Amino acid sequence: MSILVVGSVAIDSVETPFGVGENVLGGSATYFSTSASFFTDVNLVGIIGDDFPQEHIDFLKSRNIDLRGLVKADGKTFHWKGKYGYDLNEAQTLDTQLNVFQTFRPQIPVEYADTEYLILANIDPELQLEVLTQVKNPRVIACDTMNFWISSKPEVLKQVIAKVDFFIINEGEARQLSGEVNLVKAAKAILAMGAKNLIIKRGEYGVLLFTKDSIFAAPAYPLEKVFDPTGAGDTFAGGFMGYLANTGNISDEGIRQAIIFGSVMASFNVEDFSLDRLRTLQYSEIDARYRSFKRMTHFETVEPT
Amino acid sequence: MSILVVGSVAIDSVETPFGVGENVLGGSATYFSTSASFFTDVNLVGIIGDDFPQEHIDFLKSRNIDLRGLVKADGKTFHWKGKYGYDLNEAQTLDTQLNVFQTFRPQIPVEYADTEYLILANIDPELQLEVLTQVKNPRVIACDTMNFWISSKPEVLKQVIAKVDFFIINEGEARQLSGEVNLVKAAKAILAMGAKNLIIKRGEYGVLLFTKDSIFAAPAYPLEKVFDPTGAGDTFAGGFMGYLANTGNISDEGIRQAIIFGSVMASFNVEDFSLDRLRTLQYSEIDARYRSFKRMTHFETVEPT
Repeated sequence: MSILVVGSVAIDSVETPFGVGENVLGGSATYFSTSASFFTDVNLVGIIGDDFPQEHIDFLKSRNIDLRGLVKADGKTFHWKGKYGYDLNEAQTLDTQLNVFQTFRPQIPVEYADTEYLILANIDPELQLEVLTQVKNPRVIACDTMNFWISSKPEVLKQVIAKVDFFIINEGEARQLSGEVNLVKAAKAILAMGAKNLIIKRGEYGVLLFTKDSIFAAPAYPLEKVFDPTGAGDTFAGGFMGYLANTGNISDEGIRQAIIFGSVMASFNVEDFSLDRLRTLQYSEIDARYRSFKRMTHFETVEPT
Repeated sequence: MSILVVGSVAIDSVETPFGVGENVLGGSATYFSTSASFFTDVNLVGIIGDDFPQEHIDFLKSRNIDLRGLVKADGKTFHWKGKYGYDLNEAQTLDTQLNVFQTFRPQIPVEYADTEYLILANIDPELQLEVLTQVKNPRVIACDTMNFWISSKPEVLKQVIAKVDFFIINEGEARQLSGEVNLVKAAKAILAMGAKNLIIKRGEYGVLLFTKDSIFAAPAYPLEKVFDPTGAGDTFAGGFMGYLANTGNISDEGIRQAIIFGSVMASFNVEDFSLDRLRTLQYSEIDARYRSFKRMTHFETVEPT
């Protein structure tokens, strides 16, 4: 089953202690789509400017990503400039030029309206609500956000949260949104806002899935080389939703497997700048790393002595 | 099989955002021993002053901890005073009074010399080496240290590391000792110093076990109430070694189960001040939480599509 992704397509300039990526392909919808494309067909809704390089269009098309919902507007593409220190967990934003993204009003092509899998990437929660009015009745809705929307539009955001199956945010955002320092209390508070499930991303420490009655803890894959964490969260979500859409299995077990596939995709993505690692990635590598995750976390139940 | 623990017995004064514990029982050997005592017999070698309350002696004895190696010296017991902020991951030391601990020269009672399981808690690495000359040929040696010894006596510490089966330190110490920011590189460097296995503690994020050819990642148990993280690392190590000594199973699988039991013990210990939670803990609760860990981390292998 195909996935519909609504989010940003961007040009990034990124500096890490290991190198510099100038004017490289970026954006939440880009990372989501490329990651999900290893598992299923993807329809992308976003906006680019007239400066957006054709090579990036060609790359997305080479991943079988349907771009009928990618609008080209007069002006420049959204540009983000950021920097990471040796602690690669948090980016320092140096410059944000919204450009054409400022005028983004997502129009869902009519042929996408009956999508069963929908990802609302990090955009204004009012736009996320608008998207939800344009789709019929998705089986699975996932949603991301950021600190800016949590502080500026918390009430609108809560309306979105109440409608989603998977709300996917990081630790700091979970604390900010809930006002709770303790992560278990924060998760309970956010589930009480109406999200069916909550996935809290913890960077190099992995993710926690909170459902109404269980917790699943997945580590991140320990890597010897981490070059550029940009897009890791979006790549995670792309692998997660891509696998769910591929299997259609939204049981607890299916969701857990999807979380590991998401973690696998994120672990590859940080190994090189921009989406470069995903350009050469093979499914056999994804499969091998999934098995490696299993070996890395597996232990047996023991009988009480 | 019984365990020999060499380390500190202390009186602590601890302040957290949730309360204050004045002159409560503390010390690495105390936490180790009490935690391990749920799994096996424990022999404790340490030193106390003449002010050490009889009630603490009575408590340790009630846990079947053999105190023939606990020396009482003239003077005051080691006293540590610390404070935690809302980020409970790191203590701020307000005061350290070594007192009689300054004169500690561990003498291993002759009846302990053929111990098969030995824990060298965080003491001067020169004393750790001395202990190793007083035991015959332990089957499993675990060892802890701290930033102070890493910076002041790195060469002596490396002699200790080369002799141990499990070197157990936290993330920051692993980076400090190896000079590597990346944790996988840090682990490789420390294994190259001769430790057979390395356990890196990451507080609320769990632990990583590095062996020569594998990595095991265990999450921490997500808790709604964390009152006092003091002794969590020592309680972890006590549960870990206690379980190994109980089963005698030092296969990869046995070691992984031991790490989960260690994590279970640490998760209980932080639920109350000092060792108070361990005072009322029942084995049935330990067993239930182990099973909960299994449910929290379990997922199936999938066949490639």
